[in-house]
Amino acid sequence: MSQYRVLIDANDEKGLVHKVSSVFYNNDLNILSNNEFVDKENNKFFMRSVVDGDIDAKELKTFIQNVLPKNSGVDVIEPDKKNIIIMATKEMHALGDILIRHEAGELEANILAVISNYNDLGSLVGKFDIPFIAISHVGLDRAEHENEVLKCLENFKDIDYIVLAKYMRILTPRFVEVYENKLINIHHSFLPAFIGANPYKQAYDRGVKIIGATAHFVNNHLDEGPIIAQEVIHVDHAYSWKDMQRSGKDVEKVVLSRALKLALEDRIFVYANKTVIF
Amino acid sequence: MSQYRVLIDANDEKGLVHKVSSVFYNNDLNILSNNEFVDKENNKFFMRSVVDGDIDAKELKTFIQNVLPKNSGVDVIEPDKKNIIIMATKEMHALGDILIRHEAGELEANILAVISNYNDLGSLVGKFDIPFIAISHVGLDRAEHENEVLKCLENFKDIDYIVLAKYMRILTPRFVEVYENKLINIHHSFLPAFIGANPYKQAYDRGVKIIGATAHFVNNHLDEGPIIAQEVIHVDHAYSWKDMQRSGKDVEKVVLSRALKLALEDRIFVYANKTVIF
Amino acid sequence: MSQYRVLIDANDEKGLVHKVSSVFYNNDLNILSNNEFVDKENNKFFMRSVVDGDIDAKELKTFIQNVLPKNSGVDVIEPDKKNIIIMATKEMHALGDILIRHEAGELEANILAVISNYNDLGSLVGKFDIPFIAISHVGLDRAEHENEVLKCLENFKDIDYIVLAKYMRILTPRFVEVYENKLINIHHSFLPAFIGANPYKQAYDRGVKIIGATAHFVNNHLDEGPIIAQEVIHVDHAYSWKDMQRSGKDVEKVVLSRALKLALEDRIFVYANKTVIF
Amino acid sequence: MSQYRVLIDANDEKGLVHKVSSVFYNNDLNILSNNEFVDKENNKFFMRSVVDGDIDAKELKTFIQNVLPKNSGVDVIEPDKKNIIIMATKEMHALGDILIRHEAGELEANILAVISNYNDLGSLVGKFDIPFIAISHVGLDRAEHENEVLKCLENFKDIDYIVLAKYMRILTPRFVEVYENKLINIHHSFLPAFIGANPYKQAYDRGVKIIGATAHFVNNHLDEGPIIAQEVIHVDHAYSWKDMQRSGKDVEKVVLSRALKLALEDRIFVYANKTVIF
Repeated sequence: MSQYRVLIDANDEKGLVHKVSSVFYNNDLNILSNNEFVDKENNKFFMRSVVDGDIDAKELKTFIQNVLPKNSGVDVIEPDKKNIIIMATKEMHALGDILIRHEAGELEANILAVISNYNDLGSLVGKFDIPFIAISHVGLDRAEHENEVLKCLENFKDIDYIVLAKYMRILTPRFVEVYENKLINIHHSFLPAFIGANPYKQAYDRGVKIIGATAHFVNNHLDEGPIIAQEVIHVDHAYSWKDMQRSGKDVEKVVLSRALKLALEDRIFVYANKTVIF
Repeated sequence: MSQYRVLIDANDEKGLVHKVSSVFYNNDLNILSNNEFVDKENNKFFMRSVVDGDIDAKELKTFIQNVLPKNSGVDVIEPDKKNIIIMATKEMHALGDILIRHEAGELEANILAVISNYNDLGSLVGKFDIPFIAISHVGLDRAEHENEVLKCLENFKDIDYIVLAKYMRILTPRFVEVYENKLINIHHSFLPAFIGANPYKQAYDRGVKIIGATAHFVNNHLDEGPIIAQEVIHVDHAYSWKDMQRSGKDVEKVVLSRALKLALEDRIFVYANKTVIF
Repeated sequence: MSQYRVLIDANDEKGLVHKVSSVFYNNDLNILSNNEFVDKENNKFFMRSVVDGDIDAKELKTFIQNVLPKNSGVDVIEPDKKNIIIMATKEMHALGDILIRHEAGELEANILAVISNYNDLGSLVGKFDIPFIAISHVGLDRAEHENEVLKCLENFKDIDYIVLAKYMRILTPRFVEVYENKLINIHHSFLPAFIGANPYKQAYDRGVKIIGATAHFVNNHLDEGPIIAQEVIHVDHAYSWKDMQRSGKDVEKVVLSRALKLALEDRIFVYANKTVIF
Repeated sequence: MSQYRVLIDANDEKGLVHKVSSVFYNNDLNILSNNEFVDKENNKFFMRSVVDGDIDAKELKTFIQNVLPKNSGVDVIEPDKKNIIIMATKEMHALGDILIRHEAGELEANILAVISNYNDLGSLVGKFDIPFIAISHVGLDRAEHENEVLKCLENFKDIDYIVLAKYMRILTPRFVEVYENKLINIHHSFLPAFIGANPYKQAYDRGVKIIGATAHFVNNHLDEGPIIAQEVIHVDHAYSWKDMQRSGKDVEKVVLSRALKLALEDRIFVYANKTVIF
C-alpha cells in the first residue's frame, strides 16, 4: 500500500473530474482527500487528491496523463521529506522558528544547509548540527557574489525549496530563473505599501494601524511573485517604528512558516502570477 | 440551461466521486464548482457540486441516487430565494443588519415576517414593508406562548430557515423538533464560557481579553447545536461590561449574517452535531 | 455637576501632567479617565481627560490654557450629540450600517442629512425620516457640482463631521479645506496597494490573500489623510473579484462605523498627517 | 541619569495623578510614558509611569509613598533583565519560541534553568547553554515530586517569573502560594470550553470553528488565574483533531511569549483575579 499526492493542472474541459476519478476507481485506489478548483477566467482546472492503494507512482501518472488533455501537468508524489536550503542575513526570528519546528519534527523537510552573507547566524545554526555556509558579499559586486552562492548551491542535489528567511539581498533574474517557483520569500507588508529604505519608519510616519507580512514565490520583480500567505497585526500610535519592526518580526515568522508548510505538503499551484492553495 | 446545487451526504465507499461525476459527464453537465470531504472517523462522504446543463432537477436527482448507496442523502437545488422568518426580542443590531442586507439585495431570501415577543422592533421592521408580528408572552407560560408562535408560523408555507436574531426566549424540544436544522441562533461566546445570567458581566469580572459570538443550529440543548460560524474581538481592562456588551453586538451581527449567508447558499451539511461547510 | 472631555495638544515640556492635574485638583474635579501620550520624535504632548465637577466649561478651559505653553490646543467639550452629514453614492452597506446604529441609539449623533449624487439611496434614507438630498453631477463639471454640494452644506450650521460612506467622487482641495479634519472617508486597502480603476479586480488578478479597509480623514491627497482605523479579512483563490468586493463591503462598513464612533467620542487627535487615538 | 518604571496601585481618591506628578515635577523628572486606569467598580487606581532623571530609586519610592493613601502599592523598578525559570514537559513549541527569542536578545530576561519532569527536552535546552534539570515524577506521588521541584527552585535566588511552557502537571496550592503572581501558564481555550482529557479531541467532536490559547497567572483553581493574553485562530471541518492540536501549538507559543514580554516589561497589575495591562 502506497500513499500518493496527485496534482493536476490542466486546461478546463467537461469531464476532467470524471476521467481522473475513473483512473482512481479502476485501479482500486482510495481517495483520502480531494480538492478541485476551476478558474473560469483563465479556463484552468486544478486538482489535488491524496490516494492510497497498490500501484506504482509512474504507472499512475501515465494512466492519468492518458485521460487528460495534452500538455496537462500531472505530478504523483510520495509524501516524503523535501530538501530545503535556508538563506538568511542577520536576523534570527524567521530562521529560528524554522529551526525549532524542524527540531520538533513538525516539518517534512531536511535542511541541507543555511547560507548567509554574514557570519552572525553561524552560532545559532551550529547548535542544530546543520551546515552553516557564510558567503560574504564584501568586496564583490552583485553578480560576483551571486555566482559564489550559485556555485555553492550546485553542491546540493535535489533542492526542493530555497527559503529566504530574511535574506536581505536582491536576487538577479538569472538566479530566479534557475530556481523558478522554488524560492519562498517573506517580506513586510503595509496598507498602504511603502517603497524604498526602512519601510517600518515610513509606516510609522504614515501612522498605519496595521502591519503585515507576505510570503510569496520570487519572480523577477522584487516582492511581486505569487502570494502564498499573508497576515497582519494591529498597532497604534504608541508604537515607535522599532516597536513596529519588532511586532512585524512576529508576523513574518508565522507567515513564512505557514507558507513553507504548505509548500512541503504540495498544496500550492502556481499560475498566472498567483496561487491556488488546497 | 439550468444551474443546480447538488448536495450529497453518504456513507463513504470507494468510487463515489467517480460515480457522481459519471452522471454529470454522461448528462453533459458543466461542473462550476466542486467540493468533497470525507470524515474518516464517521466514515461519511460529503459533496457539493454546482453544475449547469440541460436536465430536469428530479431526473438528475434520480440519476445520482441510482449510483449511490441506499439511504444516501441527495439534494438537487435550483438557486432561488429562500423563505425566512426572523425572530427577535428587543435588540436592533442583528435584525437591522439582516434588514439592510436584504434591502441591498445581498441575501438570497424573502423575509416572510419578523416575530417578536415585544412591540419595540415594530417601528424598525415597518420601515422595510415586512410584516411584524408581536406575540407577547405576558400572562402566558412557556408552552402557551410557544403555542401561539407555532400557530402563527403555520400561516407561512415553505419556511426554509428561522433566524433567531437575539430572540431571548428558550425554545422547547417540541418547537426545535418541528423546525429541525432550520433554526439558526446567535449567542455570545467567551473563553472560558459563562453560564447563567448576564454573561457579559461575568466575563468582565473574569477579566477576559477576548469576547466572541457563535452562530449555530438549535437542538434541544440550549446553545449546543451544530456550530456554523464563530468570531471574536479583543477587549482590555478599560472595557466596562457595558462596553463589552456593545462590542459583542458587533461580533454577533457579523457572525449571524455570515451563517445565514452560508445557509442560503446551501453550503452547510449537518451531521453528528457538527457541520461541514463548503 | 457637569462632565467634560478635556483635550490637550501641546509642545512637550516637563510638568504638563502636573500642571493640568493641578487645575483638576484645585477645582475639585473628579478624573473619570485619563490618557496621555508623548510623541518624542515630534516633541508633542497629547492628553484626553474625562472629568466631572462643578465648573463652567469656559472657565475650565481658561484655567488650563493659563498653565500650558502658548499656542497649546485646549478643548473642553460637554458630551453631546454631534451633527453629522453623510455623503454617499449608490452603495447601501456603509450608509445602512450607520442608519441602523443611529436608529438603535448607538451613535452620539444627529444625522442632519444624507447627500448623494444619485437618487438610488433616497428610498432607504426616507425610511428613517432623515432628509435625503440628491445633487446630480450629470451635465456639471467637477467644480460646478462641488459648488452645488457646498452651497447645500451651507444650509446646515455646526456640522461636526461629514462621513463619506462610499461617496465615489473626488473632492477638490477647496472642499477639503473648508471641512478640514471633519471629512471621514472609507476606502478598500490591499497588500500590496492598487492604484486606478477597479482595485478589487486588480487584487484578484494579483492573487492577494487579504483584503482590507481603511478609514481616514481626507486631505488633499486622495486616500492619504490621517488613518483612523484599519481592518482586514482573509480571502483565497476561490473568491472571484466580485466575491472579494462583497466581502470587502463587510470590512468597509465595520471600519467606517468604528472610526465614526471614535470621532463622536472625541478620541482622535490629528497631527503630522497621523492620529493619536485614546 | 537613571530610568525608572513607577508602578502604583492604590484606592482611588481625588488628586492622585496630581500628587504623583507633583513628585515627578518637583524632582525634575522627565515622564517618558504615563498610563492610568481607574476601576470604578472596585474603586482602584492604577498608574505606570516611565521617568528619567537624577534621583535614587528608594528615595523616589518614599516620596511617592508619602503623597499616597496608606497601604498603596508603589514599585520603582530599574529596567533590567529579570530572572526566569522555565518549566516544561515534552513539547518543544512554547519552550523553543522562548529560547530563540532569548538567543535573539528580544527578552529582558536571564533564563536560570529549564526544569522538566522528563528528559526529552534536554537536548534542545543544552544547545543554548542553559541548565536543564530533569526531575522525574516516576515513583513519586504529587506532593513528593513537587517537593523535589520546590527544593530545586530554592537553589535559585531572586526568581522573578516561572514560565510554565506546557508543563503538564497540576501544581498544588502550596506551590502556587510560594510563587504567587510569578507563575505564568499557557493553556488551550475553546468556545465552548471543554473540561477533562484531550480537549482538542472534544473540540473536534464538537465541531468548533475557532481554537485559542490563554496565558494567565496561576492561582489555586487550575486554569482560572488572572488572564494576561488570549488569541484564537480559525479552523474548519477539514481539520482532524491532530491538525487542531498542531495549529493550537502555534497560538499557544505566540500568546505565552506575548504574556512573558508584558511581564518582563512590568506592564501587568494583578487584582481581583484579573489584570490591568499598560
